Amino acid sequence: MQAYPSSGYSFIIRLRYQNLVGMLGSITSCLGSSGVDISSIDIVESGGGFITRDITANVRDTAHGHACVEALRVLPHIRIINVSDRVFLLHLGGKLEITPRTPMNTQEDLMMAYTPGVSRVSKAILADPDKVFTLTVKRNMVAVVTDGSHVPGMGNIGARAAIPRMEGRAVFFKKFAGVDAFPLCLDSGGNIETILTTLRSIAPVFGAIDLEEIDQPQCFEIERQLQKELDIPVFQGDRHGSAVIVLAAIINATRLVGKNLGDLKVVLSGTGATATACARLLLSAGICHLVVGDEHGIIDKTEAASHSDRLWLRDNTNLDRLAGSLAVALNDADVFVGISGGPTATPDDVRTMGRDPIVLGLETYLHIQPEEFAGIARVIATGRSDYPNQLTTVLCFPGFFRGLLDARAPLITETMKRAAAYSIADIVQAHELHEEYILPSVFDKRVATALARVVAHEAEHSGLAQRALTSPTG
Amino acid sequence: MQAYPSSGYSFIIRLRYQNLVGMLGSITSCLGSSGVDISSIDIVESGGGFITRDITANVRDTAHGHACVEALRVLPHIRIINVSDRVFLLHLGGKLEITPRTPMNTQEDLMMAYTPGVSRVSKAILADPDKVFTLTVKRNMVAVVTDGSHVPGMGNIGARAAIPRMEGRAVFFKKFAGVDAFPLCLDSGGNIETILTTLRSIAPVFGAIDLEEIDQPQCFEIERQLQKELDIPVFQGDRHGSAVIVLAAIINATRLVGKNLGDLKVVLSGTGATATACARLLLSAGICHLVVGDEHGIIDKTEAASHSDRLWLRDNTNLDRLAGSLAVALNDADVFVGISGGPTATPDDVRTMGRDPIVLGLETYLHIQPEEFAGIARVIATGRSDYPNQLTTVLCFPGFFRGLLDARAPLITETMKRAAAYSIADIVQAHELHEEYILPSVFDKRVATALARVVAHEAEHSGLAQRALTSPTG
Repeated sequence: MQAYPSSGYSFIIRLRYQNLVGMLGSITSCLGSSGVDISSIDIVESGGGFITRDITANVRDTAHGHACVEALRVLPHIRIINVSDRVFLLHLGGKLEITPRTPMNTQEDLMMAYTPGVSRVSKAILADPDKVFTLTVKRNMVAVVTDGSHVPGMGNIGARAAIPRMEGRAVFFKKFAGVDAFPLCLDSGGNIETILTTLRSIAPVFGAIDLEEIDQPQCFEIERQLQKELDIPVFQGDRHGSAVIVLAAIINATRLVGKNLGDLKVVLSGTGATATACARLLLSAGICHLVVGDEHGIIDKTEAASHSDRLWLRDNTNLDRLAGSLAVALNDADVFVGISGGPTATPDDVRTMGRDPIVLGLETYLHIQPEEFAGIARVIATGRSDYPNQLTTVLCFPGFFRGLLDARAPLITETMKRAAAYSIADIVQAHELHEEYILPSVFDKRVATALARVVAHEAEHSGLAQRALTSPTG
Repeated sequence: MQAYPSSGYSFIIRLRYQNLVGMLGSITSCLGSSGVDISSIDIVESGGGFITRDITANVRDTAHGHACVEALRVLPHIRIINVSDRVFLLHLGGKLEITPRTPMNTQEDLMMAYTPGVSRVSKAILADPDKVFTLTVKRNMVAVVTDGSHVPGMGNIGARAAIPRMEGRAVFFKKFAGVDAFPLCLDSGGNIETILTTLRSIAPVFGAIDLEEIDQPQCFEIERQLQKELDIPVFQGDRHGSAVIVLAAIINATRLVGKNLGDLKVVLSGTGATATACARLLLSAGICHLVVGDEHGIIDKTEAASHSDRLWLRDNTNLDRLAGSLAVALNDADVFVGISGGPTATPDDVRTMGRDPIVLGLETYLHIQPEEFAGIARVIATGRSDYPNQLTTVLCFPGFFRGLLDARAPLITETMKRAAAYSIADIVQAHELHEEYILPSVFDKRVATALARVVAHEAEHSGLAQRALTSPTG
């Protein structure tokens, strides 16, 4: 799966040794021949003929890290003082803090931000409930909600273990789009009613709700139910975000190979919540030849599941009435999209695809390693950050929610998602388009700005925007 | 009630006039004779014989502000361009933001704070659930929870209008004690089960829960129930915080007048949740002569309410079996404590008290104006910040929760509260003690530090502390 050293597995090894010529060389060769990627070598202390150094290094995984340390231990005259894991050091105390936006240094500050001043603000909101959107954190606050029941690669890990993941998403929200996001990890005991009650209850303080990594079909039920009841958007950031970036990647890859969306044959590997969200968006964008399947094969007219999403897929995809395994569908297809849970496509399968195969693997789908498809697929995009075309929802959700909050949209539409996909694709201009540049970098600041603009525009255009010019006086 | 100009009612008046000698003088005299307190006068623009100025001024209340502006309008040759309310300007967009504690500028940062690095952190928490306290925001995160059902001076204002209040408390948490606090304002529809479900559900991400301004008896029921179920402290910051500062004020006032707590006769005006919390703490601190009453008079042995708190008060207070109005109880008493909802004590009532009367009014009790009791009471403490001895829970809750989080205490004890009261009182040293200095300033940084230390110490001393030395590696 992840077979290359990365900062996801980054360690600092502190070691002390007699400062003789050649010692450092033997250390670095030992690490190098173990497959370690050394990022930096620092001196901690030197004197009395001894030296203490910190070696910061990336490894492939935890086991690889242990093996490298053991290899070092075998070297003579070297004492390993400590091995610390940079990822854990970074997580100590959590990745977020809550910071005042107002001073609180004098009695005057206190009287404005708290009593007696605050009472007038409360009264203003009582008199006009709409003012809660301008006079409180609600204006810019997203709840990043999970129960930890459907974490890619890990399954149901529960609320506590999911906190670092949601904190990570909150960091993206703020860094890429200035959105304040709070990681609400719910101890729901798998009870959908608990989640619904909780989210209804906490809704006043949030301007939007981002549902993440909740198992299906609960995730859709929660989204549907709350979107009906609440006046703020409720959005499955992982599912719909995946759909948006898949569409963005298909748009640009198609431009590159000179085909039309309407003519494309697209195969989705996976039949879960994300696959359904992708299928809906691709259809709405004009892709009509769409086949969806999993390890049981292509979903076709014989599908008799009780699961409403599978039935929806049966009724709305597979226009050409294919049957059999996904390999059948890949024959002469233009695009393959791998989604978490779906079966793999082999290089041989891809060889049966039509001209200029486009192979996409979502970040949660670990079967596609770009190395294996080099020279076989014309365009490859995966979740890997060490290869071109990183396909990640990080490109989508910060800017998308920025737009929702800016327009104060009460809900999300397929049109917004489609516009979002085009805005991401359009960041890469026609003359820049290349096999290795169909998607902008996650650090490209233009992405969130463009996305926010089109989402807000769509909200306004469709009459959904509720933003009002509120005067600051009560 | 609040009859003095304060920054709680602070306005900026922008006006333009012909720049003639005497004009500014007539403006300031007009404002001065209207009772306005001018804080600053700035030039916005000047030229062509005209000048535009911003006058920042404090008034007594909204009506007073309007009256002053009208008085200005009558002056010749002056055009009022705009009047803006500084309190509303300060509240625009809310008073808090959520800030990353980790960098997110490179792919390396992303791989450490999110995938793939974050998965190892999740696994570490799965393997040892205790690690959630060190590797996530839970370590330092308090939920400031209200349903807005019992706001002093306003009553049941609901979740939305309560947000600015809870944001204010969150600002105090961070500024005074470095605690991250999130304002969770719940749309509970007055349903206690909704609040319980919500708080159980969101508990994983919080290290403590601060219940605020929730109506009684629900507030006690929620506190009791959750404290039984959850492994984090659940505390009514308003009620118990009030009890702590009332005790702190009584300790120092008693030291000042040379009496003993055990001999004091104390009268509490108010029989609500805060009064009950105060009564419990004062009794536990060794004050035995305690009388509690409201507009129906002293709670005595004839009390037959079904309300469990009133019955508790009946059984545990009024040792001397007094009966009648609160004025009866004040006769020869040493301390009067006014609590929100309780009837007033007049200067004449206080004249009947014993030697060196001590008169305390909580910040939510607006009947005691220090001016009226000057020369009658020896020690006066109220919520007013423009008089000495400000009696406010802001002195208590930031440091108290800091201590709970530091020790990772799972619950709160009476001993902690008592220790907290003494730690606040002890900030004022014996040689500093004075009628006008029985309580430290809310801006005195020593308060939160001292309080946190004693609360954590009590938690450790009583075997409640769960802080474990966790290594940063998984």
